[in-house]
Amino acid sequence: MLITEQELDTLFSWIEEYDTIIIHRHVRPDPDAIGSQLGLKVLIQNAYPNKRILAAGTSIESLTWMGKMDDLSKDDYKDALVIITDTANQERIDGAHYDEGAKLIKIDHHIVVDEYGDLQIAYPEATSASQLITEISQRSNDRLPMTDEASELLYAGIVADTGRFLYSPTPDTFEAAKVLVGQDIDTRQITDRFSETAIKEARFQGFAYENIEFHEEGVASLLITREIMEDYDISEDATNIVLNIPSNVKGMYTWVNFIEQEGDNPKYRVRLRSKGPAINHIAQAHGGGGHAMASGAKANSTEEMEEIMKELKEITTEYKANLA
Amino acid sequence: MLITEQELDTLFSWIEEYDTIIIHRHVRPDPDAIGSQLGLKVLIQNAYPNKRILAAGTSIESLTWMGKMDDLSKDDYKDALVIITDTANQERIDGAHYDEGAKLIKIDHHIVVDEYGDLQIAYPEATSASQLITEISQRSNDRLPMTDEASELLYAGIVADTGRFLYSPTPDTFEAAKVLVGQDIDTRQITDRFSETAIKEARFQGFAYENIEFHEEGVASLLITREIMEDYDISEDATNIVLNIPSNVKGMYTWVNFIEQEGDNPKYRVRLRSKGPAINHIAQAHGGGGHAMASGAKANSTEEMEEIMKELKEITTEYKANLA
Repeated sequence: MLITEQELDTLFSWIEEYDTIIIHRHVRPDPDAIGSQLGLKVLIQNAYPNKRILAAGTSIESLTWMGKMDDLSKDDYKDALVIITDTANQERIDGAHYDEGAKLIKIDHHIVVDEYGDLQIAYPEATSASQLITEISQRSNDRLPMTDEASELLYAGIVADTGRFLYSPTPDTFEAAKVLVGQDIDTRQITDRFSETAIKEARFQGFAYENIEFHEEGVASLLITREIMEDYDISEDATNIVLNIPSNVKGMYTWVNFIEQEGDNPKYRVRLRSKGPAINHIAQAHGGGGHAMASGAKANSTEEMEEIMKELKEITTEYKANLA
Repeated sequence: MLITEQELDTLFSWIEEYDTIIIHRHVRPDPDAIGSQLGLKVLIQNAYPNKRILAAGTSIESLTWMGKMDDLSKDDYKDALVIITDTANQERIDGAHYDEGAKLIKIDHHIVVDEYGDLQIAYPEATSASQLITEISQRSNDRLPMTDEASELLYAGIVADTGRFLYSPTPDTFEAAKVLVGQDIDTRQITDRFSETAIKEARFQGFAYENIEFHEEGVASLLITREIMEDYDISEDATNIVLNIPSNVKGMYTWVNFIEQEGDNPKYRVRLRSKGPAINHIAQAHGGGGHAMASGAKANSTEEMEEIMKELKEITTEYKANLA
């Protein structure tokens, strides 16, 4: 358990005190942002049916299955308690006026880069904001008892941010999951929402598994032409479902997809990934950039595509030599 | 928590009483069979360093990372306590002489079809035998305290049998996971062990993604002939890496793999899975059995294969009708 008693006491007394409570989360929300936001909304509304509990921010079509946002105006913030979930810095808060309430609370699991709010419940040790909201309910002494609806939202948030318990689950993560599956929820259905694919996408994955080139240097590559996208009826964005196939293949440390463009400038969009050496300097040298293990670039010709392959093979060979 | 106090008392008193304890599990072991067997071995050996704790059964190359089996002879069973994990019926126990010890204990999570043993700790509500072994340690009042090594084995067993918390995790499942990650283990490394594939396995997945038949009734099927196994250099056991591909495909509720056998009796080994209707009665009608959502059967002819398909389509159509 992460949250201090003092933080909980302040949180519950402010929830008790204010009749309007507005909950924000970050822009471009993922299921943990929405799950923590709407999960907390449902918990407070259930415990205090006479209060106005509002969710602020843009609605995202792909996540409407989780619930809807409310329409808000500046007036709503008068004498309101404002809670921000899953958002490390104020620039990323979705929605205006968040600083015009009576009190501001931050509930977040990211590394602390911006200490905002009158109360900050910020624990980078938590896998997700949804895990923290679950802990708040569990330790509320029935002031915010868990409900089935909140449980579905929070379970989705935890599953999304941990890659279904793959990324660094701790005892607290499983304690939260235990609380949530104690409610009447269909965990399989929630999880399936994240991984459901269409038949045509399954066929396209077949193409990828059959055609990825696995090079002895530990580099895997796949060329996706316009013709292939047409044959499989797959949009350029949707091609990324096959990007990480090589991540599980024995002996592969870096991999790349070359996606043919409509015109010639650039000729290929390049998606670079690694579980070994940093690859972002290669991306930077080819009109792109990104993270050490996940970058994007461009190749203006077949020659530039071959150059990128050569550079990837060099750094991967060097990386493998240092492993041994 | 599932196990009764009385069962625990008997178990611990017998572990205390016998100087030789031999642990078996089922033939063709999966990580839960090995995890529960070797996890229990490690726990008892740690608590009782002077006892002889032995693991019986054939060694399986693909699971040697979990540990090794011991060499056993008939004499070892004299005055020994024998414990069988993860095995519903005696025919499936791997290793001889299991019934020649002083006492026999069954610890299992399958539906009870064969009531064997002087003590039966059998809970189909548990996701895995490894979950039950974890509960035994947790409720042992420090008579069998958890260790890092046992924790790795048991976590592997739970992850394998639940498809990493996908198949029906309960509060008890997450309670067990919580106990295990409280030890010093690398959950990511354990999980990666399950997903690492060889290049030839990636190619075989390509074959499967391209050739699975997705039927409009919501049933997916794949026929894996001897010729295909030869072409891709894939053993019959290894074919199961493609079994669950349809689980994520939109509109599919049941799926089946028919694996051609060397001889004609049976002609096909049948692996049945579902995320909708129970399919074990179909398996039972065709020389097999198993869980509601995961069963195995046999088909002695192409006609019987078609019969199984027909039955699957019927129950899946009915299931879908009731969904709407």
